[in-house]
Amino acid sequence: MSQPTVKYPRMDAHSPVLRELAALLGDRLTSSPAVLERHGQDESYHAPCLPDAVVFPESTGEVVGIVQICARHRAPMIPYGVGTSLEGNIAALRGGICLDMGRMNRVLEVNAEDMDTRVEAGVTRKQLNAHIKDSGLFFPVDPGADATIGGMTATCASGTTAVRYGTMRDNVLGVTAVLADGRVIRTGTRARKSAAGYDLTRLFVGSEGTLGVITEIGLKLYGVPQAISSAVCPFATLAGAVDTVIQTIQHGIPVARIELLDEVMMEGVNRYSKLTYPLLPTLFFEFHGTAASAAEQAQMVGEIAREHGAAEFQWALRPEDRSRLWQARHDTLYAGLALRPGSKALITDVCVPISRLAECILETRNDIEASGLIVPIVGHVGDGNFHLLVLVDPVDQAEIERAWKLNKRTVERALALGGTCTGEHGVGHGKIGFVEIEHGEAVTVMRQVKMALDPDNLMNPGKIFRQ
Amino acid sequence: MSQPTVKYPRMDAHSPVLRELAALLGDRLTSSPAVLERHGQDESYHAPCLPDAVVFPESTGEVVGIVQICARHRAPMIPYGVGTSLEGNIAALRGGICLDMGRMNRVLEVNAEDMDTRVEAGVTRKQLNAHIKDSGLFFPVDPGADATIGGMTATCASGTTAVRYGTMRDNVLGVTAVLADGRVIRTGTRARKSAAGYDLTRLFVGSEGTLGVITEIGLKLYGVPQAISSAVCPFATLAGAVDTVIQTIQHGIPVARIELLDEVMMEGVNRYSKLTYPLLPTLFFEFHGTAASAAEQAQMVGEIAREHGAAEFQWALRPEDRSRLWQARHDTLYAGLALRPGSKALITDVCVPISRLAECILETRNDIEASGLIVPIVGHVGDGNFHLLVLVDPVDQAEIERAWKLNKRTVERALALGGTCTGEHGVGHGKIGFVEIEHGEAVTVMRQVKMALDPDNLMNPGKIFRQ
Repeated sequence: MSQPTVKYPRMDAHSPVLRELAALLGDRLTSSPAVLERHGQDESYHAPCLPDAVVFPESTGEVVGIVQICARHRAPMIPYGVGTSLEGNIAALRGGICLDMGRMNRVLEVNAEDMDTRVEAGVTRKQLNAHIKDSGLFFPVDPGADATIGGMTATCASGTTAVRYGTMRDNVLGVTAVLADGRVIRTGTRARKSAAGYDLTRLFVGSEGTLGVITEIGLKLYGVPQAISSAVCPFATLAGAVDTVIQTIQHGIPVARIELLDEVMMEGVNRYSKLTYPLLPTLFFEFHGTAASAAEQAQMVGEIAREHGAAEFQWALRPEDRSRLWQARHDTLYAGLALRPGSKALITDVCVPISRLAECILETRNDIEASGLIVPIVGHVGDGNFHLLVLVDPVDQAEIERAWKLNKRTVERALALGGTCTGEHGVGHGKIGFVEIEHGEAVTVMRQVKMALDPDNLMNPGKIFRQ
Repeated sequence: MSQPTVKYPRMDAHSPVLRELAALLGDRLTSSPAVLERHGQDESYHAPCLPDAVVFPESTGEVVGIVQICARHRAPMIPYGVGTSLEGNIAALRGGICLDMGRMNRVLEVNAEDMDTRVEAGVTRKQLNAHIKDSGLFFPVDPGADATIGGMTATCASGTTAVRYGTMRDNVLGVTAVLADGRVIRTGTRARKSAAGYDLTRLFVGSEGTLGVITEIGLKLYGVPQAISSAVCPFATLAGAVDTVIQTIQHGIPVARIELLDEVMMEGVNRYSKLTYPLLPTLFFEFHGTAASAAEQAQMVGEIAREHGAAEFQWALRPEDRSRLWQARHDTLYAGLALRPGSKALITDVCVPISRLAECILETRNDIEASGLIVPIVGHVGDGNFHLLVLVDPVDQAEIERAWKLNKRTVERALALGGTCTGEHGVGHGKIGFVEIEHGEAVTVMRQVKMALDPDNLMNPGKIFRQ
């Protein structure tokens, strides 16, 4: 089980790196314990790991200045959005300087005619969607949390809409990044496709801050569909729900969202969001299109669902009902935690080929029953991606060990089925061992790329692979 | 104007590298002049540049053996598909060994339920589609030429269907590659999404053989749509045709193909394919979907087209009529060349944000008229991507210089509009200077990545960036 062990000596306020940063940033450098604490812990079960200081840059130029100072003094640098990562991705494993990107929160351009935008890294997805509300456009990638676009880019986030609109990998047009030596590069263009050399954009998407600090991101936007309809549909059995998903995908029906919540998760949702859904395995759907095509999709999916033991769709037709429905879905982490007050969640994130989804989920459910733990299941099942929220007492090491074993078995099963250990949460320091099993020699190539760009290993060290 | 100048000393049959390769491969190593000639020239206007020998590996293991021998003797290695590249991507600028992947042409797996496949690099796209014909699936990426999947992956090919199905970047699930030191890596998984470390898959897509030899590729497949309809639609003006494209994209209508041919190109098409289309700027369309949604798309596009001065759609409803229509479109390179017998085409490949497409094409057309050259225009305009086929007498250096100037002006215009110098043909050695202008410091990062993986610069040297 990968847990941080190395504790580097802390810097004190007189250390040269902090003095130089203070000269550059004034009171936008802090080592206040409360701020350090907030920046050393994400939403995961991993133990906190605090940075020595937090800085709040306001421009790419300031990031360059910060990086140059840190590089000169060999201080680790950890970019930070809002801390919603789930694998310790922002833990300051070796101390160093946390770059909180929250003040770089300007939407720089909205090109409505081209359906694209350029934002600073600290813009959150809800802020972006509020900003473009009147343009008839929206940014679809939706991991649930109101994460920053920079953080979503760095971890290759996705979420409920990826089945239709893709992940961050598919929706980032380019980035501006500050490298470990202070150089600034701009990848990509505003063109929708390019074959102009190595795809550095995709190299930075999912690099988790280990190759540089992403300061700006170009994104695709989409026209708000003419018709949007959402529905909830309970099933007699978990197998019936999963098989409905598989057939929907195999038929190529372009659903915008198709989310599974098992009956344990539904109990949490009902309690947390004060709802009264049946306590059954349930699919949450959304359909986007013209009025005719959205209706056609719903009708086709409805037929498949009925064949698999579904009750009727419960439609949420008004925008406010839809919002309530998806808010309930997005609150599943908190709803899960509320099933066991005081717990933290170890969240698995496997993703498998769609044909193997039923066996993967059903065998995993047997493991859950054998484990004796409380483990709601929720997932972006249209992508073959699902999560176990393994609820653990964070101070009970034996229980964490049991949770970890369940995680490990689930990952091993997914890899055996041709899948991946992480569909969307990234590696952080929590999944390093799994990525080695999944990618073998290719991890060495990742490390070579990292070392070519960051030979002193200062950019978010200890993440993605052993260094 | 970038032309190869360095001629390395040729190897003779007694050189150690050829002797060792012969021991490994027997008669699957050749230095016969006819074979060398065929492997030293792609379909571009660039001067031929022959390798010293061509090898025909039959397995990833044999590629490892070849790479180890070449690496030991510092012999350059150039992977080769069928030679349909357009920027000298396969030119043996420094001599060396050409790896013709044509015998690695097995379809290794077809997972119909997951809509994916795994093929060896030498499988061509038509071969793949013939192989899966009865599965109800197809592979959509269609650059026109019957290129190999390996070559299409290496150059990030796309073509007529990218507007709906994306480019190779979007459709490659993973690759097996042999690196410069003989290590074999396998990137990606069969899962539809992953955040498990750096996206090495996308790093290899578009790397043009400079990072290693791609030997196997995992690909997404798609269900053959229930309804497919194609139509041709002539316009009174070029502006009307382009504006129809822009509005179609801005309305988010999911056309499967939307291709522009100007009246010069239409004359070539009529002559070459013995057709009688009106000599007007023309859009070629294809609609995929359920019967209802394909009809709805056609109706919406029809309305937009009429507002922009279109005549009626001429429908090609039977499969054989559709094939004839798209064959004519795919033959545009040969149709263009037939407008001036004995010519070669310098083909531009810019791609711009869709809102700037009209000004980019119309201003470029003014340049064409000023140039006095014969230059049909054809393009994947739904992506903002179009090509000039600048027809040149390949031995008339002054004319090639004029063609090059037109190319340069077109690229400069596209970059100023936020676009790219190459939408889909790649860089080869023909666009190195343009990529430097487009990406600046980021090119240095590409070079660092290359040098980390291929420190002796043996993998297709002289491509993508100066080395």
